[in-house]
Amino acid sequence: MSDTLTLPEAETDNAPRTRRSAGGREAKRAARSARVVQSAPYITRKIPYFEVLNEEGLATIERNANTILEEIGIDFRDDAEALDIWRKAGAEITGERVRFPGGMCRAIVQASAPREFTQYARNPAHNVVIGGKNTVFAPSYGSPFVRDLDKGRRYATLHDFQNFVKLAYTANAIHHSGGTICEPVDLPVNKRHFDMVYAHMKYSDKPFMGSVTKPERAQDTVEMAARLFGDNFVDPATGKNRTVCISLINANSPMTFDDTMLGAAKVYARANQATIITPFILAGAMSPVTVAGTCAQTLAEALAGMAFVQLVNPGAPVVLGSFASSVSMQSGAPTFGTPEPALVLYVMAALARRLGVPFRSGGGLCGSKIADAQAASESANTMLPTCLGGVNFVLHTAGWLEGGLSMGYEKFIMDCDQAGMMHTLLAGVDMSENGQAMDAIREVGPGKHFLGCAHTQANFETAFYRSPITDNNSFEQWEAEGGVDLSVRANALWKKQLAEYEAPPLDAAADEAVLDYVNRRKASFADSNI
Amino acid sequence: MSDTLTLPEAETDNAPRTRRSAGGREAKRAARSARVVQSAPYITRKIPYFEVLNEEGLATIERNANTILEEIGIDFRDDAEALDIWRKAGAEITGERVRFPGGMCRAIVQASAPREFTQYARNPAHNVVIGGKNTVFAPSYGSPFVRDLDKGRRYATLHDFQNFVKLAYTANAIHHSGGTICEPVDLPVNKRHFDMVYAHMKYSDKPFMGSVTKPERAQDTVEMAARLFGDNFVDPATGKNRTVCISLINANSPMTFDDTMLGAAKVYARANQATIITPFILAGAMSPVTVAGTCAQTLAEALAGMAFVQLVNPGAPVVLGSFASSVSMQSGAPTFGTPEPALVLYVMAALARRLGVPFRSGGGLCGSKIADAQAASESANTMLPTCLGGVNFVLHTAGWLEGGLSMGYEKFIMDCDQAGMMHTLLAGVDMSENGQAMDAIREVGPGKHFLGCAHTQANFETAFYRSPITDNNSFEQWEAEGGVDLSVRANALWKKQLAEYEAPPLDAAADEAVLDYVNRRKASFADSNI
Repeated sequence: MSDTLTLPEAETDNAPRTRRSAGGREAKRAARSARVVQSAPYITRKIPYFEVLNEEGLATIERNANTILEEIGIDFRDDAEALDIWRKAGAEITGERVRFPGGMCRAIVQASAPREFTQYARNPAHNVVIGGKNTVFAPSYGSPFVRDLDKGRRYATLHDFQNFVKLAYTANAIHHSGGTICEPVDLPVNKRHFDMVYAHMKYSDKPFMGSVTKPERAQDTVEMAARLFGDNFVDPATGKNRTVCISLINANSPMTFDDTMLGAAKVYARANQATIITPFILAGAMSPVTVAGTCAQTLAEALAGMAFVQLVNPGAPVVLGSFASSVSMQSGAPTFGTPEPALVLYVMAALARRLGVPFRSGGGLCGSKIADAQAASESANTMLPTCLGGVNFVLHTAGWLEGGLSMGYEKFIMDCDQAGMMHTLLAGVDMSENGQAMDAIREVGPGKHFLGCAHTQANFETAFYRSPITDNNSFEQWEAEGGVDLSVRANALWKKQLAEYEAPPLDAAADEAVLDYVNRRKASFADSNI
Repeated sequence: MSDTLTLPEAETDNAPRTRRSAGGREAKRAARSARVVQSAPYITRKIPYFEVLNEEGLATIERNANTILEEIGIDFRDDAEALDIWRKAGAEITGERVRFPGGMCRAIVQASAPREFTQYARNPAHNVVIGGKNTVFAPSYGSPFVRDLDKGRRYATLHDFQNFVKLAYTANAIHHSGGTICEPVDLPVNKRHFDMVYAHMKYSDKPFMGSVTKPERAQDTVEMAARLFGDNFVDPATGKNRTVCISLINANSPMTFDDTMLGAAKVYARANQATIITPFILAGAMSPVTVAGTCAQTLAEALAGMAFVQLVNPGAPVVLGSFASSVSMQSGAPTFGTPEPALVLYVMAALARRLGVPFRSGGGLCGSKIADAQAASESANTMLPTCLGGVNFVLHTAGWLEGGLSMGYEKFIMDCDQAGMMHTLLAGVDMSENGQAMDAIREVGPGKHFLGCAHTQANFETAFYRSPITDNNSFEQWEAEGGVDLSVRANALWKKQLAEYEAPPLDAAADEAVLDYVNRRKASFADSNI
């Protein structure tokens, strides 16, 4: 992957907090940084986008989205302030239904939403730029269950959550620590966000996501982040908060936002933290059964949500999200990795580019319960469109099983391998003299082989993507080694990575400040599972 | 898949031979035709091609290919006639090395090679048009072994070969019967081509491939085809043979053609049968370790081979083939489904379009020994580029395992499912009024669901691609049904399809004529395994 290394913008004004330890720990740290440096903080694509619709098709969908916004409208439920904000902006309000005359949502978004933005990590080498030609890979999000080959499927715990934070930190191909990687169901519902957010802060130095399940949990996330970043939280040049977390605001499709999501969105927008406005759509249930219909509805919902964020705080980073799959017309079950969602993804990516905002979609989605061939096909049929279509923020890159109900340890490792390949794919074709390799062809000539030629010798270290888990040995060797499938090799690798994990250094004062906030807040109200 | 149905050109001059049976058999046949009609004879894409290189990059690779042809040259080995043909055409000959001044190969190909051509099937509903915006899926080719879940890996037999012909005939998503699907090693090497070609003729009515392992075996293929097609073999309008078979001519990369392949190519070209000129390249061994270098060499080799075919018989259908993967720089083993071969594929597809000839590449390639997640990822990472890049003739669509050493029964079924999805993907986005579905969105409105709305009711039959083998049930239901992986469901399906297989009707006189030729030829020389 060395040819795909993307250096972050110079961040001299945002250096990590001074570190005080020395000696043997310093040497260890140097070794760690050396390893971490190999990891690209994010991908900047060098290949074109794949487009499935022409100008006319895209313009038709934009027109239909506008019709939905103008004629049908979007419900903003149980949030009087939201309705008030819309009324002042000139929208037409009937009960909780908001209608948007004359393309106002698009105009609002285009007036202030940034085309791309930096999400800061506590280690500036891991800052990511979301938007433009960049792709950021984050782990899967939201599973109540975890699964591994040893113990099968079970409810997730904080220990699992921490394990996945560590695995994502260790994975070169994963740029982001993610959010609710899995639900730590061993903790009370009203306090588990503290432990999740703290795990991201403590066990990783990659950027992370915040809590959205109540507005006050969003506020807790912001408070913890402010303490973690300390003096670096506010940009002295602008006096505004730096964007240090990104959070997932789902629409209740069709055409509805609820007070929980609106509340969290307001907290984050006011703190200049990024939100991803995502219509969560299983086509056939939450949208029409067609690609064009699903795209128009997704765009309308996302426009309304993004415009709302811009009204709350003009310029707050916002991402157009699309989670679209379909339901089986036979059983009603959600399906993944089929061609229709891939078409939706290509169309939505193009629409986000035309609008001029970053785009979130895709990942390694599958319906399979286990990390078998079904899981792998479905994931590849989602991940490749994700990369070719031009997704900027890829939630669910690694670990996803069972329509998101389960987070798989082996699946996580397999998906990281796929994400690694995407770095090479998105780097495109090297057209340098060395890439053209005419000297090699001249040197070798007809009927010979290239294995020992000077060009191969000079390039073999970086020549091809190397998978850590695929088996390309002979049948005989593979059989002698146990004749196992990919998941068994992935099982060995996640255990090795956890065993070798070393936490990134964390400034003790910042750690203390975060923990102090968490402990005071935890003590201030009773545990509850609501 | 009904929305992707592509009707073949009207073929009134090429009707199937009159059939004489009636009554109950007629009714059965009608039922069969009804089933067969559902199958698209090939795909005509409605989405754009994905391109990774711009004009400048493609022109550079074309220039480099020309440099290889002019300065380095191509070896044509052990075939004095071939050298003579090149000498007369104006090439420079030194020993067996042929050099091609002033872009002569490109000029020869563009002067007479057809941009697209029809390969006729004995059932005209299964004729395929190879080239242009069309994609034709054929089974895998060339494995000495077969594998299934019940009996594991073993040498292939004629029985296996016949099974795969039947499975390919049954598969709606497979358009072509293929060639040496697996090697029937229970038959003598010098006679097994008779049984393979006959199996394609007898157990399927889809188009097929010919033998290439000796020039006389190519001639046997042509003779058998002439008897199968009878009066329909020659086009009365042109007096030329119709193209009824297509055959695989591999270059011995780097930059070498041998007498076996040249001999077969001459037989097929003179009979106006199609050939696929394919540099078979594992980058790092048979070509440089870079994408651009591999592409330039592939183009040079293919241009020399295609120009040779055009010199033998101007206008004979010829396909630019590219089989490119890479070798592990650690073990020397071939690898599949990695990003570099996908980049080669995208580039070669664009180069074939610029040249103006049909393109063959891709398929469901993998290095895995079994139909596990590795096989599925690698296959998807080859098949999706195959379709997005614009491959016209897809050899190895279904069954490939273990770098082509083994043909998998379960893998075949899984790959057919993937090929089925590609029909939907390549059909693109339906932008009709029904596709836009604005009435559905108006009918349902905010906060409701689309499951019962009129638009969903009207479209649910064809709304989404339906996989026959993926499991999208709940975890509990999946577990209650045994908790099995995809390969177990695929195992059940191939057995069902073989059990339900019914041979397509074959004119008795044609069958007799073919068998008479085969029996006379088989008796005319001794069995041999050379």
